[in-house]
Amino acid sequence: MRMRNKPWAMDFLEENNNIVDIDSTYSGRVGAFFDETRPLHIEVGTGMGTFITELAKRHPEINFVGIELDKNVIVRVVEKVIEANLGNVRLVLLDANAIDTYFRNDEVSRIYLNFSDPWPKTRHEKRRLTSSTFLEKYGAILKEEGILQFKTDNRGLFEFSLVSMNTKGMHFHEVQLDLHADEPEDNIRTEYEEKFSAKGNKIYRIRASF
Amino acid sequence: MRMRNKPWAMDFLEENNNIVDIDSTYSGRVGAFFDETRPLHIEVGTGMGTFITELAKRHPEINFVGIELDKNVIVRVVEKVIEANLGNVRLVLLDANAIDTYFRNDEVSRIYLNFSDPWPKTRHEKRRLTSSTFLEKYGAILKEEGILQFKTDNRGLFEFSLVSMNTKGMHFHEVQLDLHADEPEDNIRTEYEEKFSAKGNKIYRIRASF
Repeated sequence: MRMRNKPWAMDFLEENNNIVDIDSTYSGRVGAFFDETRPLHIEVGTGMGTFITELAKRHPEINFVGIELDKNVIVRVVEKVIEANLGNVRLVLLDANAIDTYFRNDEVSRIYLNFSDPWPKTRHEKRRLTSSTFLEKYGAILKEEGILQFKTDNRGLFEFSLVSMNTKGMHFHEVQLDLHADEPEDNIRTEYEEKFSAKGNKIYRIRASF
Repeated sequence: MRMRNKPWAMDFLEENNNIVDIDSTYSGRVGAFFDETRPLHIEVGTGMGTFITELAKRHPEINFVGIELDKNVIVRVVEKVIEANLGNVRLVLLDANAIDTYFRNDEVSRIYLNFSDPWPKTRHEKRRLTSSTFLEKYGAILKEEGILQFKTDNRGLFEFSLVSMNTKGMHFHEVQLDLHADEPEDNIRTEYEEKFSAKGNKIYRIRASF
């Protein structure tokens, strides 16, 4: 997701360093970022943050960490967290490639990927968040039995992801090829999901573990 | 596929016992059913036989065996084989449950499943041709590196099959969630495929091995 450059973004994020970690202050000790110890769920690529903030409202018993690379995007999520006064959401300005150094091994109970960039060109395959290298990082930081949930409307990316996750030896718990046809009550629609579903795109979802 | 009962079907099949095996005469020695030794591909559930006869025309270097349970259906395939004078197609009137006794272990290079009965009720799950028990039978008769190709327009069955095949430790080579969007040249549309695609259904396909 690209946003117009906000010259004030870094200042705003620094002012709110109780909510967002911009310089990996909590690397290796993200638990200290929260008031209470709770199971840890993360979202890789928060976008505007509708998903993680809504999920956090529904699940006060879970600590959520949202990772986002773009400072102009993450400011919107910080605003949402402040507005809803969510003590169980913290944000990290971080390249997804660094998650396995930021989080400790076997620390995370669940990873969410929502409408990740499809990188359709074959030469960009490694940038896809379900490519082999990323899956290895997820496998390292996830607890045993920890779940990776991935949602997208991009057919090519989902086809790729099914093969990639299978090849990595992941166990498929559930696959849905038209999530909205029989939408689970616990589904939280992201901004992208609303937009692409309205255009008639199917929404795909998989839940799998290592 | 249900067809009207044809009282003459069994007589017709007996007369053409050079093309169709109705009493498992060639069980354990299906190679003897053909004039020449060639790699063996099978289709489980031929329906009207458009797929297997067209495939056989394109691939004279392969021996094809079509399995079908319904005598009223298999007569149509026998007629097609006679009409096209196909020396590389033989048919077997057989319950799919018996394929692992009919074929020898590691005998088959490829198995095709096309638009198999979805058996949507959970209590009929075991009847689905991609359920655990059937996959074990395919695994037994397939050669190492042998391919199972499965096509359907039934979303529920395909979702089930992805999980079932993954759980059985199968290796996914290729998954397509809208086969006709970028239709491979080698795709052969079955009768069902034409019908359901015309209704706007997506066609799903997977190729996987054990």
